[in-house]
Amino acid sequence: MAYLNDNYLKLKAGYLFPEIARRVKAFCEANPEAAKRLIRCGIGDVTEPLPRAVIEALHRAVDEMAQRSSFRGYGPEQGYDWLRSAIAKNDFRDRGLEAGDDEIFVSDGSKCDCGNILDILGHQNKLAISDPVYPVYVDTNVMAGHTGPADDAGAYAGVVYLPCTPANGFVPEPPKEKVDIIYLCSPNNPTGASTTRDQLKAWVDYALSNKAIILFDAAYEAYISDPAVPRSIFEIPGARECAIEFRSFSKNGGFTGLRCAYTVVPKSLMASTADGKLTALHPLWHRRMSTKFNGVSYPVQRAAEALYSIDGRKQVRELIDHYMGNAKVLVAGAKAAGLTVYGGTNAPYIWAQTPKGVTSWQAFDKILNDANVVITPGSGFGSKGEGYFRISAFNSRANAEEVAGRLQALKW
Amino acid sequence: MAYLNDNYLKLKAGYLFPEIARRVKAFCEANPEAAKRLIRCGIGDVTEPLPRAVIEALHRAVDEMAQRSSFRGYGPEQGYDWLRSAIAKNDFRDRGLEAGDDEIFVSDGSKCDCGNILDILGHQNKLAISDPVYPVYVDTNVMAGHTGPADDAGAYAGVVYLPCTPANGFVPEPPKEKVDIIYLCSPNNPTGASTTRDQLKAWVDYALSNKAIILFDAAYEAYISDPAVPRSIFEIPGARECAIEFRSFSKNGGFTGLRCAYTVVPKSLMASTADGKLTALHPLWHRRMSTKFNGVSYPVQRAAEALYSIDGRKQVRELIDHYMGNAKVLVAGAKAAGLTVYGGTNAPYIWAQTPKGVTSWQAFDKILNDANVVITPGSGFGSKGEGYFRISAFNSRANAEEVAGRLQALKW
Repeated sequence: MAYLNDNYLKLKAGYLFPEIARRVKAFCEANPEAAKRLIRCGIGDVTEPLPRAVIEALHRAVDEMAQRSSFRGYGPEQGYDWLRSAIAKNDFRDRGLEAGDDEIFVSDGSKCDCGNILDILGHQNKLAISDPVYPVYVDTNVMAGHTGPADDAGAYAGVVYLPCTPANGFVPEPPKEKVDIIYLCSPNNPTGASTTRDQLKAWVDYALSNKAIILFDAAYEAYISDPAVPRSIFEIPGARECAIEFRSFSKNGGFTGLRCAYTVVPKSLMASTADGKLTALHPLWHRRMSTKFNGVSYPVQRAAEALYSIDGRKQVRELIDHYMGNAKVLVAGAKAAGLTVYGGTNAPYIWAQTPKGVTSWQAFDKILNDANVVITPGSGFGSKGEGYFRISAFNSRANAEEVAGRLQALKW
Repeated sequence: MAYLNDNYLKLKAGYLFPEIARRVKAFCEANPEAAKRLIRCGIGDVTEPLPRAVIEALHRAVDEMAQRSSFRGYGPEQGYDWLRSAIAKNDFRDRGLEAGDDEIFVSDGSKCDCGNILDILGHQNKLAISDPVYPVYVDTNVMAGHTGPADDAGAYAGVVYLPCTPANGFVPEPPKEKVDIIYLCSPNNPTGASTTRDQLKAWVDYALSNKAIILFDAAYEAYISDPAVPRSIFEIPGARECAIEFRSFSKNGGFTGLRCAYTVVPKSLMASTADGKLTALHPLWHRRMSTKFNGVSYPVQRAAEALYSIDGRKQVRELIDHYMGNAKVLVAGAKAAGLTVYGGTNAPYIWAQTPKGVTSWQAFDKILNDANVVITPGSGFGSKGEGYFRISAFNSRANAEEVAGRLQALKW
């Protein structure tokens, strides 16, 4: 008798974005006219074309694959040396941070890495997870059997939730109790809050003194403009002994449809065996990727490399400036609509409070029906997200301006 | 205190192919002259350029990504509808087999899927795995904690190994004992043996009567020429109630460097919860892919679609004919060298017995040193692979002929 993994049955409803897609589809089918003016500010997906440098690199790589002499089959599972080296040099060493080429693991997505990292960690770890936050951290732990069942608000037993509220500026402090694995996301998805150097130092100190590990999701680092906000956890002394960092090309190079990301696992990062022996995690992740992954598509790795060229960097800068220009428009529009808003300065997300008495999903339905705009209900990011919604700045400028206007016209 | 997954420490040595790469690298550094005449018949990696239809589809898709109006960001995690539909229609429905478009899950590799499928299965399942076989099945189960430690021959406690030997034509029969999850690979990697319709029917009948699940790896189905050998387990009545099938574009379209594969999970496939309730696995795999995967690169999905065009099919046929022509040359060469050989008729692998008293790794080192040819030691595929080595037919015709000649010149 074959058994399934019962933990999947503990998951509440669908994963957030498929559920949004379902509701939007139903709305569009029922309202074909309104559907024509629909603007999507829901899922955090880029809208602008790939940078020219990337397009050129892709065409060149495809042509290489058409000739026997330059054809590439299986590449190294951890990524080609030239890409690992370009990443380590540009994103770390040129910024004065230590990073070996072989500490960079190229993958097809940070979402995958955030989930897969659990493969190499023990089941006995106690978890701390920000609330609200990107749902993948919690859901993958539920699937792996690291939690009990969920309560009515969607909070799972056994997880130490770190509430992110206006009172703490949506940046949680380390808990009083001992935890082993901590998920931090800065700039934060969905709140747009970013963690300052001092705040992050408090977390690194906590991790070092508790021999805990921080899983640091820096997928939105390219949107940081405030010099007090670190772009990498490795800017904090001691982080190489307690942190893994996830980075993505999705939101800087616009790779959501191309698929490339990377994870930094320092060789100095240790974890304990069940019988208390400290052991490096780097070889375990190397082995995990060798055995359960086959590397990123060759043309896509060439495309990622092109982001580090002089042209590529300039083009990425223009994309970021474009989206952050949208964020400014949306923040102003939401404020003019009388909403209390957060975020939108070091992140492409605006975190808006719903009017009094309106739940997140009620706000979602109202904004969809009356403004024909798709946003993301805050409660989908955790129970502390209830009473908020997220507006994504990934759009054309014209759409951002239109959405700002429609929010102001909305009668709650 | 953060804990690691102790099960990783049970793994024997490195994953097979990285170990081969290490030995080849050391040899080439020590013998720069011999390195120039090195021919690789080790890892099962294609060598010929991508089909013209694929190259054209890639260029077109890249151009789409360069325009705002045709740019694609996140796609459906399970694959675009047009690709799922092309697969279900061409590989199944047009061959008289039932398969819904939404039973096809597009991924970046069969290796990934074979490992990831364990996410949705329970830890209490008893496993049966062919020996020798593709090492990923065993290694991913070791990592997941489904085995005890390995013995000196590399066999892990708790696994029911199904010996594949000359006596059974390298196709195992169902065991007398009850098992819950069965890994079958046909045409087999590494032995090249293929399972006939009658043999596969015995397995399906076993699975149905034991409520077991067969994980059927058909990555090499394109190489089958014998009409008695099924290309899909779904050719066997009842398989939709007891099997998951893994397929790949790596070995037909030459996608080892592009990355695309798919897995078929029939909606009628059930497994038991811990308390005995039969539940469909399809929604669990759908959820797994939604939460831990972000879909395959858009241009690569367009490339896979192109394999089903009239030109694409013709070009794939030419690639397969080319590699199977090599297999013929290599079988003849190995036989002329006095070796006992198997496989090479419905699969691009030749499975050769080492001369008496020579171990698999000794044969590897000897062939590397004296013939400057890289093969794969059979013991790397399981303890019953000891005393064999695998020759891959993925090469140019000239190289295949050269290898055939060098094998004959070898003095054991």
